[in-house]
Amino acid sequence: MGSSATAPWKQLLLNALQSNSHLKHSSYFQLATVGNNGRPSNRTVVFRGFQDDSDKIQMNTDSRTRKIEDLKHCPFAEICWYFTDTWEQFRINGKVDIIDGYSADPLKLQHREKAWFASSLRSRLQYLGPTPGLPSLNEELSEKTSLDPSTGPVGAFCLLLLDPDQVDYLNLKSNERQSFTSTRTGSGEKFWTSDKVNP
Amino acid sequence: MGSSATAPWKQLLLNALQSNSHLKHSSYFQLATVGNNGRPSNRTVVFRGFQDDSDKIQMNTDSRTRKIEDLKHCPFAEICWYFTDTWEQFRINGKVDIIDGYSADPLKLQHREKAWFASSLRSRLQYLGPTPGLPSLNEELSEKTSLDPSTGPVGAFCLLLLDPDQVDYLNLKSNERQSFTSTRTGSGEKFWTSDKVNP
Repeated sequence: MGSSATAPWKQLLLNALQSNSHLKHSSYFQLATVGNNGRPSNRTVVFRGFQDDSDKIQMNTDSRTRKIEDLKHCPFAEICWYFTDTWEQFRINGKVDIIDGYSADPLKLQHREKAWFASSLRSRLQYLGPTPGLPSLNEELSEKTSLDPSTGPVGAFCLLLLDPDQVDYLNLKSNERQSFTSTRTGSGEKFWTSDKVNP
Repeated sequence: MGSSATAPWKQLLLNALQSNSHLKHSSYFQLATVGNNGRPSNRTVVFRGFQDDSDKIQMNTDSRTRKIEDLKHCPFAEICWYFTDTWEQFRINGKVDIIDGYSADPLKLQHREKAWFASSLRSRLQYLGPTPGLPSLNEELSEKTSLDPSTGPVGAFCLLLLDPDQVDYLNLKSNERQSFTSTRTGSGEKFWTSDKVNP
């Protein structure tokens, strides 16, 4: 067992991202949430980096998707991230902060704006499209929609921030597994412990 | 909108499996469950085929893993299956039946036995190993463990059977999305409807 103030799994994850960077899908993971019917839901989401130097994981999403409803009901989520080339799996559990245009925190709004401009124009255009998951009316409006590259985040654009408190790492090549658990110190700082566990 | 007695998404899934069969990881998907703390959990699982001619999805697991605890608490799960070569995603939601050695149904026990013998010897040996997720004692017993190929399923071996009632299909190349929903007829037969929805 080891312990550390900086997230010890973060370097493992950065290494995996590096080793699998030749694969477009290496930045995709699956995000599980719980719906208000108590059932799990699960979908592929794109990794948008860590927030600044923290271990908080950024994702972008449309406020009109079901996952926002899910997260308002239950703010906990688990990422399952499998790296297909190096056979490594990260399961990252934590609380998700939803940052939309209504946030009262100027720093959060700034992060949201930064995430918006870090997305491709093509990605940004999706937030102007029809409501995801609703019956398709084949209006073919999407062809006509255009967006000024200097326009800031539109209403539907949400930044999601997952603050990990439990990480399970599995390496299928070495058949090794490690469990990382965070605790909070008196001053609120996160502190990580790690254990080798049976695969 | 279309409707059908046979699962209309099954052919799409079989096509995706075929088109991605050159990739070892194409038979891996992520299974989300809900723990008894109400939080989601998510892990990579291997697809073990459909049961007979049905649309029920088979998985193998160890009865000592957390997912069994989760499923006993909440039997619903959602598979998220992303095909990295064809950019197709299937989200499959349904109830999971846990079939262990204590099942009173001889047909279920037969399916469990069939699943056991369909696994590689290497896979079977895992069920004789130390309890998954518990601290590793480095006993290195695994090297010595051997298993007679004719030995039937051991106690820890579970067959999981997911009976889909909702499937969401997304094709990121064509940017098309379809939603499939099942209803039960008076005689208890599943009946599927499908809708084109906004991606």
